[in-house]
Amino acid sequence: MFDVAVAGATGAVGSVMIRVLEERGFPVTRLRPLASARSAGKEVEYLGKPFRVEELREDSFEGCQIALFSAGGARSRAFAPAAVEAGAVVIDNSSAYRMDEAVPLVVPEVNESAIEGHTGIIANPNCVAAPLVVALKPIADAVGLERVVITSCQSVSGTGAAAIEELRTQSAGYLAGDEPEPEVYPHPIAFNALPHIDVFGEDGYTGEETKVRNETRKLLGMPDLAVSATCVRIPVMRGHSIAAHIETTDALSADGARNLLTAAPGLILRDEPGGNVYPLAREAEDRDEVFVGRIREDSSHPRGLAMWIVGDNLRKGAATNAVQIAESLVTNGWL
Amino acid sequence: MFDVAVAGATGAVGSVMIRVLEERGFPVTRLRPLASARSAGKEVEYLGKPFRVEELREDSFEGCQIALFSAGGARSRAFAPAAVEAGAVVIDNSSAYRMDEAVPLVVPEVNESAIEGHTGIIANPNCVAAPLVVALKPIADAVGLERVVITSCQSVSGTGAAAIEELRTQSAGYLAGDEPEPEVYPHPIAFNALPHIDVFGEDGYTGEETKVRNETRKLLGMPDLAVSATCVRIPVMRGHSIAAHIETTDALSADGARNLLTAAPGLILRDEPGGNVYPLAREAEDRDEVFVGRIREDSSHPRGLAMWIVGDNLRKGAATNAVQIAESLVTNGWL
Repeated sequence: MFDVAVAGATGAVGSVMIRVLEERGFPVTRLRPLASARSAGKEVEYLGKPFRVEELREDSFEGCQIALFSAGGARSRAFAPAAVEAGAVVIDNSSAYRMDEAVPLVVPEVNESAIEGHTGIIANPNCVAAPLVVALKPIADAVGLERVVITSCQSVSGTGAAAIEELRTQSAGYLAGDEPEPEVYPHPIAFNALPHIDVFGEDGYTGEETKVRNETRKLLGMPDLAVSATCVRIPVMRGHSIAAHIETTDALSADGARNLLTAAPGLILRDEPGGNVYPLAREAEDRDEVFVGRIREDSSHPRGLAMWIVGDNLRKGAATNAVQIAESLVTNGWL
Repeated sequence: MFDVAVAGATGAVGSVMIRVLEERGFPVTRLRPLASARSAGKEVEYLGKPFRVEELREDSFEGCQIALFSAGGARSRAFAPAAVEAGAVVIDNSSAYRMDEAVPLVVPEVNESAIEGHTGIIANPNCVAAPLVVALKPIADAVGLERVVITSCQSVSGTGAAAIEELRTQSAGYLAGDEPEPEVYPHPIAFNALPHIDVFGEDGYTGEETKVRNETRKLLGMPDLAVSATCVRIPVMRGHSIAAHIETTDALSADGARNLLTAAPGLILRDEPGGNVYPLAREAEDRDEVFVGRIREDSSHPRGLAMWIVGDNLRKGAATNAVQIAESLVTNGWL
């Protein structure tokens, strides 16, 4: 049984982390919900009981074995070393440590064994990279993978609770003919599509697009894989959808891909287009699995495949994956 | 001065056709709004005066020189031959004749000269293919084009007026916690992303995705061009957005592409990411031009470029392009 801290416990991801710990029956002796001073004193519920949120501080981790962080990169950098110092293993949902060579970046279905080599911090991947690699890994293993081109249609919950509220308020305002000015995003998100997630780099790619490239490479252990992404924010509350056009080393038929993906861990095939069955953001909401469908041979490339991949960004894209890493630490004695 | 019929005058596209004729000062002596028996008797406004909608029939076209059709493929097939018989040139917004070898498929900025060879019917392209080729043509001419992979994020107005109403009603219901069942689409469109536009083919591509491939090839005059599309319906009222990842024959820098596209007809460059300037569906609404931005060298291919293209599907994707074809017929004496 473990003493588990959740840093960022009142946020969009942190609150789902607590629910996932509860649902999966993670062996928690003591739950420590932590958050900024502003949120300290609030209560969160765990297994039907209220837990008081304490302020996230350097001395918050005494006696703690596992610390799930989802409080932004700056707080991870500020407080994760103290948690490690206190003897906890940190599973960090921010991007702060993901590309650090000394830190494993892990999706358990894809590269669980990387957890073993941790030195106190394990990084939880980006909410697009995580579902993407769950679908790509079985294909890469079977026939090789050469290039991945994706366009993601991402929900506002990836930005956080304020963005969910902004989409609700703006949508209601738009429909009533009285739309409020945007605050969270630089443009209206209601009934719009914003090709802008994170900051722009020199090469014209956004931070999000660069994360998808770098993290996909690291998670698959393919440092030279050709990856290109266009990441788009759309007016969806929860669930990221990904249109993937990939090129394999050996040709793979659509049926062959379906067979591989049906058998793969963490994936659910939803691919009966004649019956209008394909992955949908609204149906992936609150589900731990990744959904894949619309699988077809890409007519524009001799070894191309196209598919549509959907995952709940707060679950497999964040909280569920973090708790899976914690489970692996415990089960394998890697704590 | 011309006698101009608009078949489907009360629909989402037909009503915009009448506005575009008006705005562009098309030389109309007599406007004939036509629609199904159900809509006959309604009135449409043109230059401040009411015009009574007549029933679309075989004998509707006596003395008519130009007939703009946007009443669905079945009605185009049923009534366009009668219009041609009566001496009119038909500009057809349905997909009925687009791939007919005897029928020119035209975007005036791209292949205006194809109009000259018409034998009574000219096809207006799909609402994704039209803006796409406006952006691709200058690049194809300058450096050659080998492959086009796109994901489109399409608005509900492409489906028609009932879909706009469905998105409004569903969104309001969702926000109030009382969402009505979907009627126009097989799944909820509010706060969702549906990878399903038109019917599914044997190869797993939808009709819309196949149209994008076939029409892009025909419009660019490149019958073997490799094209692959994933077409997605998103909760946007108006304006289709396209994430394009293309491969050119000779390499082209992002700056080179920007220079080409700034000078190209019908295009507006919106590409200052540092200032949050990129094409947006909401800003393209009711605009005749195609907007392009997010231009970057695609890091996953040595001759790759990525960009974000947005056009109003009811304007450049339909009504504006049809009226431009009518203008070309008149200006060039090709009627």
